[in-house]
Amino acid sequence: MTGWLDALESLASSRAKAGLTRRLRPRSPGDPVVDLAGNDYLGLAAHPAVIEASAQSLRAYGLGATGSRLVRGSAAAHAELESELAAWLGAESALVFSSGYLANLAAVRSLTAVCDLIVSDAYNHASLIDGCKISGVRTVVAPHNSPAAVAALLDAHPGRALVVTESVFSVDGDLAPLAELHAVTSARGALLLVDDAHALGLLGPSGAGGVSAAGLAGHSDVVVTATLSKSLGGAGGVVAGPAQFTRHLIDTGRTFIYDTALPPAVAAGVHEALRLARSADDRRSVLASRAAQTVSRLSAAGFEVSPPVAGVLSVLAPGPEAALAWAEDCRDRGVAVGCFRPPSTPDGSSRLRLTLNAGVSDADFARALDVIVECSP
Amino acid sequence: MTGWLDALESLASSRAKAGLTRRLRPRSPGDPVVDLAGNDYLGLAAHPAVIEASAQSLRAYGLGATGSRLVRGSAAAHAELESELAAWLGAESALVFSSGYLANLAAVRSLTAVCDLIVSDAYNHASLIDGCKISGVRTVVAPHNSPAAVAALLDAHPGRALVVTESVFSVDGDLAPLAELHAVTSARGALLLVDDAHALGLLGPSGAGGVSAAGLAGHSDVVVTATLSKSLGGAGGVVAGPAQFTRHLIDTGRTFIYDTALPPAVAAGVHEALRLARSADDRRSVLASRAAQTVSRLSAAGFEVSPPVAGVLSVLAPGPEAALAWAEDCRDRGVAVGCFRPPSTPDGSSRLRLTLNAGVSDADFARALDVIVECSP
Repeated sequence: MTGWLDALESLASSRAKAGLTRRLRPRSPGDPVVDLAGNDYLGLAAHPAVIEASAQSLRAYGLGATGSRLVRGSAAAHAELESELAAWLGAESALVFSSGYLANLAAVRSLTAVCDLIVSDAYNHASLIDGCKISGVRTVVAPHNSPAAVAALLDAHPGRALVVTESVFSVDGDLAPLAELHAVTSARGALLLVDDAHALGLLGPSGAGGVSAAGLAGHSDVVVTATLSKSLGGAGGVVAGPAQFTRHLIDTGRTFIYDTALPPAVAAGVHEALRLARSADDRRSVLASRAAQTVSRLSAAGFEVSPPVAGVLSVLAPGPEAALAWAEDCRDRGVAVGCFRPPSTPDGSSRLRLTLNAGVSDADFARALDVIVECSP
Repeated sequence: MTGWLDALESLASSRAKAGLTRRLRPRSPGDPVVDLAGNDYLGLAAHPAVIEASAQSLRAYGLGATGSRLVRGSAAAHAELESELAAWLGAESALVFSSGYLANLAAVRSLTAVCDLIVSDAYNHASLIDGCKISGVRTVVAPHNSPAAVAALLDAHPGRALVVTESVFSVDGDLAPLAELHAVTSARGALLLVDDAHALGLLGPSGAGGVSAAGLAGHSDVVVTATLSKSLGGAGGVVAGPAQFTRHLIDTGRTFIYDTALPPAVAAGVHEALRLARSADDRRSVLASRAAQTVSRLSAAGFEVSPPVAGVLSVLAPGPEAALAWAEDCRDRGVAVGCFRPPSTPDGSSRLRLTLNAGVSDADFARALDVIVECSP
C-alpha cells in the first residue's frame, strides 16, 4: 500500500494530463475586471441599499447566527425574508437554508419520505444529484428536457415518483419545458421539484422565476428551490412549497436542523435585494437586450452560441485546452468569463459560459464582447 | 395512493405524538435573553472589531461572493483567512467552505478516494454521517470513544481505512481520546479525520483546538475540519491538512466546486475573530471557571451533569416532555438553553444542553444558573 499522499499525487497527475487541474484566483476589493462569469445577474450584490441593509443588521445582530435555526440561530431577519420569499414565489411558505446546496439536499431527501422513485434530468446540478444519492431512493436519469421520456418512466412505476429538474440550466442556460413536465407529473400523481436558481429574479412576473413564468406558482404538487446568491446577490438557499412540506423540513431536514443558520445580516441584505429585484424590470430589460447583442455579435463572428433564455449563454470552444486559453486570454485583458470543461459539462464538449450582469456599464459590456472575439482560438 | 400532503400530515401527527415536533423561535435584534444555547463560546460574534472588519469588507466587496470559489467567488479575504487558519491549526494548508456541513461532506467523501473503509464514531455529527453515506464507501460504526474497538476493526481490514471522529462531541461535550486514536490509526496506516468544531478556540495552545491540544497538529495522516460559526462567531467551515489534500478538494470536492463561496465580508469578520481568539486566554479562563461553577451549582442541586471539557455541558432530564418543559420555562424567564431529545441524542436520553459564552456577564450567568435550578422538573 503506497502512502496516501503519494496516491493523491498520482490522482493529481492524471487530472493534470487530462487538462482538469483547477486553480483559485482570488480577486481584491475594487477588482477592475468586467464580470461576465459570476451570477450577480441584476447587479445587486454591491447595490448601496443592499450593503446598507446588511451593515445595519450586522450592527444589530452581530456577525454569525451563533447556532442552528432551531437552537439559537433563527432571527427575525430570517422570518421576514421567508415571508417575503413565499409571497414573491407565490408559495404557501418558504424556508431559508445557509446554502443552495444544502437546500437542494434537504428538499430532495425530504420528498422521498413520500416518494419511492426519483426521475432526475440528465443535466441537473451536482447538489440535486447528491440529494438523489443521499436519499437512498432508486433514481433514474431521464434524457435532458424530455417530458415524453419522463412520462414513460412514470407510467412504468406504480408508486409515487418525484421528478427533479432545473428551470434554467446552469451550463447552457436553456429552459426546461416546465408546463409540459407538470402536465406529465400531475396527470400521474407525481411531484415536481424545480431548482429555480438561475431564473429567480430574471424570468416571470416581477422576476418571480421560471416556475412562476410557467404558470405553476403555488401548485400543491410543485416544490421550488433557489439560491439567494445569484440575482439576490447574497448567500444561502430557499425551499418553497406547501406549508406541510416546510413543516416536514423543519422537523426532519438534516441539513436544516444540524447546520448553523445563515448570518442574519446576510438575510437582511438579501431581503433588501429582493425588494429591488421585484421592481427591477429595467434591469431585466438591460439583460434581455444584452443577450440579443451577445448572440448577434458572436454569431456574426462565426461562433456557436446557445439561445439565451435568462442570464446564461454558452459559446462552443474547439476543446478543453482551447477553452481554457480563451478564458485566460480574456481574463488577462480584464474580462472574466466562465470556462466549462468536462466533467462539468454534461455532453463532453467545452465552452465559455457568459453570464450577464446588469451592474456592468454599457461601455464595459461592449468592450467585453470585443475582447471575447479578439481572444478567440 | 393518498395525496402527498395527507401523507405528510400523517407523518407530522406521528412526530407530534412522540413529542418530536420542532418549533422556530426567531429572536429580534437586542434580544435580552441570556444565551446558554448558542455556540458563540468566546462571545466574538458581536465583538465591535469583528463587526467593523466585516462592515468594511462588505463595503469593499459587496454582499455576496457572486459565484463559486473557482469561477468568480474567491476573494483575497478567503485566501488571507485560509492562510491564517492553516497557521493557527498548524496545518500545511486550509480551505474554506460556505458551511461546516459542506466542509464535512467534502472531507469525508474526498478521503475515500484513497480509503475503502470508514470507521465512524457512534456519536458523530449528522454532517459526518451524511459524508460517510454519500461517499458510498463501506462504513462501520464504532462504539463511542473506543480506541480498542477501532483497532480491532482496522486489524480486520486489509486496505486503507479512514477513522472519523469529533474532538469535543456536540451533545455531551465529552472529549475523544485523540492521542490514543492516532496511535491506533498511524500504526495501521489508516487516516484520522477529526471534526474540531466544538474545540476550536477553546482547547489547545492559543485555542488552536483539540487536535493541537492532543499534539497532533500538522501530522501528515490527520485531517481537521471545523466550523467558523462557533468560537469564531461567523459562518462557514474549513478543512485543514496536507497541501496535497486541499489540492485534491479544489479539483474534486463537489461541495466546494459547485457551491457559491462564503461572502467575503463574513470571511473578513471571521479573520478578525481569529486574531482575537488566538490571544483570548482571558476569555478561555472565564469559560473554565464557569464550567466549574455550573457543575458545582447543579450537582449540589441534585442534577447529573456531564464533566465539562470545553464549552458544552449536558444535564440529564427525566424524559423528553420534562426536558422540553424545563427549557421552555427557562426561556420564559429569559434564559436560552438547549434541549436535546431523541433522535438528536445518541443514547435515547433527554437533557438540557448548556453552552458557555464568555460574552455573558458574570451577573447574568449567575442568574441563569439560578433560573435553571428553579425551573427544574
